[in-house]
Amino acid sequence: MELETKLKSYLEKITRPNLALAKQAKRRETDLAKPRGSLGRLEDLAVQMVAVQDTLTPRSLDKLIIVCAGDHGVVEEGVSPYPQEVTRQQILNFQQGGGAITNLALAAGAKVTLLDVGINFDLPPHPKRIDAKIAYGTKNIAKGPAMTRHEAVSSLLAGLETALNEPKIDIIAAGEMGIGNTTPSSAIVSVLTSLSPAQATGAGSGLSPKQVEHKAKVVQKALEINQPDPNDPIDVLAKVGGLEIGAMAGVYLGGALKRSIVVIDGFIAATAALLAEKLSPGIKDYFVAGHRSKEKAHQAVLDRLGLAPLLDLGMWLGEGSGAAVAMFLLQCAAQHFNGMSTLAEAGVHDTV
Amino acid sequence: MELETKLKSYLEKITRPNLALAKQAKRRETDLAKPRGSLGRLEDLAVQMVAVQDTLTPRSLDKLIIVCAGDHGVVEEGVSPYPQEVTRQQILNFQQGGGAITNLALAAGAKVTLLDVGINFDLPPHPKRIDAKIAYGTKNIAKGPAMTRHEAVSSLLAGLETALNEPKIDIIAAGEMGIGNTTPSSAIVSVLTSLSPAQATGAGSGLSPKQVEHKAKVVQKALEINQPDPNDPIDVLAKVGGLEIGAMAGVYLGGALKRSIVVIDGFIAATAALLAEKLSPGIKDYFVAGHRSKEKAHQAVLDRLGLAPLLDLGMWLGEGSGAAVAMFLLQCAAQHFNGMSTLAEAGVHDTV
Repeated sequence: MELETKLKSYLEKITRPNLALAKQAKRRETDLAKPRGSLGRLEDLAVQMVAVQDTLTPRSLDKLIIVCAGDHGVVEEGVSPYPQEVTRQQILNFQQGGGAITNLALAAGAKVTLLDVGINFDLPPHPKRIDAKIAYGTKNIAKGPAMTRHEAVSSLLAGLETALNEPKIDIIAAGEMGIGNTTPSSAIVSVLTSLSPAQATGAGSGLSPKQVEHKAKVVQKALEINQPDPNDPIDVLAKVGGLEIGAMAGVYLGGALKRSIVVIDGFIAATAALLAEKLSPGIKDYFVAGHRSKEKAHQAVLDRLGLAPLLDLGMWLGEGSGAAVAMFLLQCAAQHFNGMSTLAEAGVHDTV
Repeated sequence: MELETKLKSYLEKITRPNLALAKQAKRRETDLAKPRGSLGRLEDLAVQMVAVQDTLTPRSLDKLIIVCAGDHGVVEEGVSPYPQEVTRQQILNFQQGGGAITNLALAAGAKVTLLDVGINFDLPPHPKRIDAKIAYGTKNIAKGPAMTRHEAVSSLLAGLETALNEPKIDIIAAGEMGIGNTTPSSAIVSVLTSLSPAQATGAGSGLSPKQVEHKAKVVQKALEINQPDPNDPIDVLAKVGGLEIGAMAGVYLGGALKRSIVVIDGFIAATAALLAEKLSPGIKDYFVAGHRSKEKAHQAVLDRLGLAPLLDLGMWLGEGSGAAVAMFLLQCAAQHFNGMSTLAEAGVHDTV
């Protein structure tokens, strides 16, 4: 229980965004040299950044994407079109800068940190990867619990402390690499929402409708065998979750502790966000939904969190890719808020 | 007719995107280390960039936004909530870097060039502004033609040659500043599409429903009095258009001549794009729609051009603001396309 006490003490330190400052930010938005409201969601983002970062000059310079990696015993049920080796292969590819996430992060001006919490292979050390391996992947959730409660808490702490160890973060996101990880995500979502396994289960990285049906049955079986307690997010994570999903939820907790804006990526990221909100109710005020992914239950999870996606580009890759692209919108929000003149400063007439 | 001959000779030089190269780009997209199609519209953008820029290494470095400015005699009909002075005041504000567009362009890494083709005031020279004033604003279209045919062609050439004079452009957009300019835009759209004046007319920079009704009647009157010829885009521009709207259409023509991707902003920009497509059928293959603005008829115009907006952020400011934000998506498209490893290069297994 020692680890859980540690986690609890972190959770107690998470504060709420500064709503008084948000009010001042709203006033500034109406004073800027443009018709009121004409920058749409960029205005809302600026106000949220002010409240979250607790400053009237919101920042978007230091951007971090922590890509959490872990494997999944449930792949032996045939729930992914890719073999488990791809987790490791892609992490090696990311280390060399050849991944989608590494390139999109480069465009976004975001740093990428790779965090191994459960890859089912030993990897030689690399400066871009933090080795925090908790286990060689999870156990098969269709047959029993994914991991112990201790391992689940360890995964949360791994993500959380990786964020905390970063000197400065204005905007943070969690990405993931873990072949099979939409299956535990669907299981978690089904436990924590009113969605049935069939409703919570989608095509992942490219399954056929028939394969999705099979996958939903695997999710159903995982829930029946494990009986996770919906009121205990750590129990849910331990029984039907994934090591990298826990780490992602931890990244969000750490991001809130650093008072940084937390950008949520796709379905797996939103699942982790749901876990984080269960662990620290109200933390969703730190979140923005980067995009709407094509994965079936993504929107339902975002709805549950009260988040409207910023982008809708037909993406469904994961890795943090949608969050990386969305980070630029926060940069636009900060830049217009900090850089624009007010009507008075610019000597621009208001409406007639 | 000399000017029109000049314009015609430019139009004849506009070529089609390289479709053979686009095929190669599609093949590369399927080879990259990600599930096929998982980057959604970023993949389509990369393929379009390859075809438009005529290179297998699409570029997003040199980005230019030409903000075209002009005034409108029709403001005397009470069609805008802002006085005409605001055109000049905002241009001065842009020169000082205090505008929405200048700040969003800064975030996007885009250069802003201000192009005065018709501000109803004399302005002291400024290094960020090109003085190509054709007239001190248009005449009131509710009483007669906006401008002469010669002036209309001049406005097109002003935008076109401003683009052509730029040494290097990978991505270009046109923005606008011109109090009252949604009124001529609605008139143009009504002539060139099947939309009635009421259907083509929206709230502009913030009119009440009652004021929008009045504005639609002004548009109706402009069409009745001027009887523009729907088969002659220059006649439409001259009779019910605007000097900066012509310049924007010219920017698109110039962008295509430079083989750069053309990002379309909101309603006025889309109206200019419709004019450009009438002048040079097929030029829309160079276009991407930056965003969906809240202005009523914007989507209808994009539909007419076969364009699906990239962003939908509730913006309705104009100035080129939506296009500026969208430029980053092209950067993401180019970066992933150029920077990612193929499955083979990365040693990543394909699907089982």
